[in-house]
Amino acid sequence: MNQFEKRYQRYRTVIDAKLASALRKSEPVSLYDPTRYVLAASGKRIRPLLILLSCEAVGGAANQAVPAAVAIEILHNFTLVHDDIMDNAPSRRGRATVHMRWDDNVAILAGDVLVAAAYRELLRTRSRAIAHVADVFTEGIVEVCEGQAYDKEFETLRDVSLNDYLLMIAKKTGKLFSVSTEIGALIGGGTEREVRALRSFGTSLGRAFQVQDDLLDITADEKEFGKRTGGDILEGKKTFLLLQAYERAAGKDRRVLRAVIEKRGITPKHVPLVKEIYERTGVIETAKQWIDRDIRQASLHLQKLRDTPARTMLFWFADMVLNRNH
Amino acid sequence: MNQFEKRYQRYRTVIDAKLASALRKSEPVSLYDPTRYVLAASGKRIRPLLILLSCEAVGGAANQAVPAAVAIEILHNFTLVHDDIMDNAPSRRGRATVHMRWDDNVAILAGDVLVAAAYRELLRTRSRAIAHVADVFTEGIVEVCEGQAYDKEFETLRDVSLNDYLLMIAKKTGKLFSVSTEIGALIGGGTEREVRALRSFGTSLGRAFQVQDDLLDITADEKEFGKRTGGDILEGKKTFLLLQAYERAAGKDRRVLRAVIEKRGITPKHVPLVKEIYERTGVIETAKQWIDRDIRQASLHLQKLRDTPARTMLFWFADMVLNRNH
Repeated sequence: MNQFEKRYQRYRTVIDAKLASALRKSEPVSLYDPTRYVLAASGKRIRPLLILLSCEAVGGAANQAVPAAVAIEILHNFTLVHDDIMDNAPSRRGRATVHMRWDDNVAILAGDVLVAAAYRELLRTRSRAIAHVADVFTEGIVEVCEGQAYDKEFETLRDVSLNDYLLMIAKKTGKLFSVSTEIGALIGGGTEREVRALRSFGTSLGRAFQVQDDLLDITADEKEFGKRTGGDILEGKKTFLLLQAYERAAGKDRRVLRAVIEKRGITPKHVPLVKEIYERTGVIETAKQWIDRDIRQASLHLQKLRDTPARTMLFWFADMVLNRNH
Repeated sequence: MNQFEKRYQRYRTVIDAKLASALRKSEPVSLYDPTRYVLAASGKRIRPLLILLSCEAVGGAANQAVPAAVAIEILHNFTLVHDDIMDNAPSRRGRATVHMRWDDNVAILAGDVLVAAAYRELLRTRSRAIAHVADVFTEGIVEVCEGQAYDKEFETLRDVSLNDYLLMIAKKTGKLFSVSTEIGALIGGGTEREVRALRSFGTSLGRAFQVQDDLLDITADEKEFGKRTGGDILEGKKTFLLLQAYERAAGKDRRVLRAVIEKRGITPKHVPLVKEIYERTGVIETAKQWIDRDIRQASLHLQKLRDTPARTMLFWFADMVLNRNH
């Protein structure tokens, strides 16, 4: 294990421990059993790590940023619990979702109290920048809600452009990445230039992460990735690949993709066919190029910071996050 | 119109205008149409008024407390939107609820963004006490969620004691009253003693308000109150009256109340019968006594403050709030 891997595991242990003690009350059980269940799920804790490392990268102590790091992970889990209700998702990370294990009402309320719990942790931050931090956090929630609203709207729209999609994922996925890096930089006492650089780094990383996620749906090993290959295709999810391929395809290919978009009679046996269309239209290659470009941009933003071990670890961490199937 | 009535209407106009401009964005429409719809509903704005008047009662300027007053009303509306989903409520204040007019998903997300919008307004507060104010606000959300969780749990429990009920309404209804008075006092720069007195005033007023609400279900004029007389009875809602009467009743009366609690075959024609049992067991009288006692306690708390026009107006306002059917 290299030194970064060790530090990552150490930070993750701290976050997991704080998450476990964030909601210690036992009653009402219908509220605190599900919230504990959610926070006990293992995860990569990407957003908390971005906060801690961004804080360090501008010269702050990671310790200062722990409450905010815990807060962002609780907030992320709130979005998962509510999104899973809206998406009718039966499982997540190999476990039943809250609304399946309990019911919709329990999941609504569990999500609600997680938002408050997230603010409670955030407000423990001791920093002169706390007001600014709270503003960034709050705008983050607003944009994540907007992103989810667009995502749901897109499900019933016939035509969604790649641009619409990019706007949506910037809000739904990207925003919490840039909120994390920005908050970390603010708590660490970064200069305006440093804060801006880290925010932009988060934005680029967030987009690369989402496009990678779309790509993994058809390229990843089922067992390692933990989701069914081609799940997005079967659900007719308007991903980077589908929207881009649809813009490029013609004739029969286009009709097949139209059927995917409209969720008309697509079964697992169509997945290889759609994958072939993705290859033929070159969108898999394009997605990889986009990810590469975003990674390069992310790196350029980081290079505006002083050269410190924390900055090097951020490079390493970005790489780790994006090579999830390795 | 007396001077207090005039001041009340003036403050209400300010709050309504700020609520109308709090969420001005138009897209995504599935997010901002419902939030605007909710905030445009007329209401008494009880909680915002409690903030403004509490701020004044400790010597602050109402103006300072306007962002927090707007925030508490947005937060209150978030709880209504989500509670209405959980309660399957078709209408509120004479209009379709969000989940009925749109759907559950839209209502979940609209509620979520209202929480963020509430914090956004709150964080506009310019006060040395802002960190404390944000803490109180956040704990308020936690307790309201706990109260709602208990309320839902009680629906499926056979036996709920009056004490359980009082704990539940203290969280579900009372808490936002005491949060309002406490926040107002904090923003106004009140002393510790003044803050405590106003918080206790809010707690007493909140309880009186809820017991009054239970009472109005069977005593109020249908047209004026806007709800169907005996609605709580038909729904088997475990109210102050039902729980207290069940503890006191015997024989056939007790069996009838058991049927109400278990929602077994209760129809509108049973409402007068249940009302008779309430009268026979004296619980209507008891509820009135409890309300009187809470009002007296609320007044005693106010008397710890300096005698100012704002304090007098708080007396007047508490009275207005509790005489909703006049």
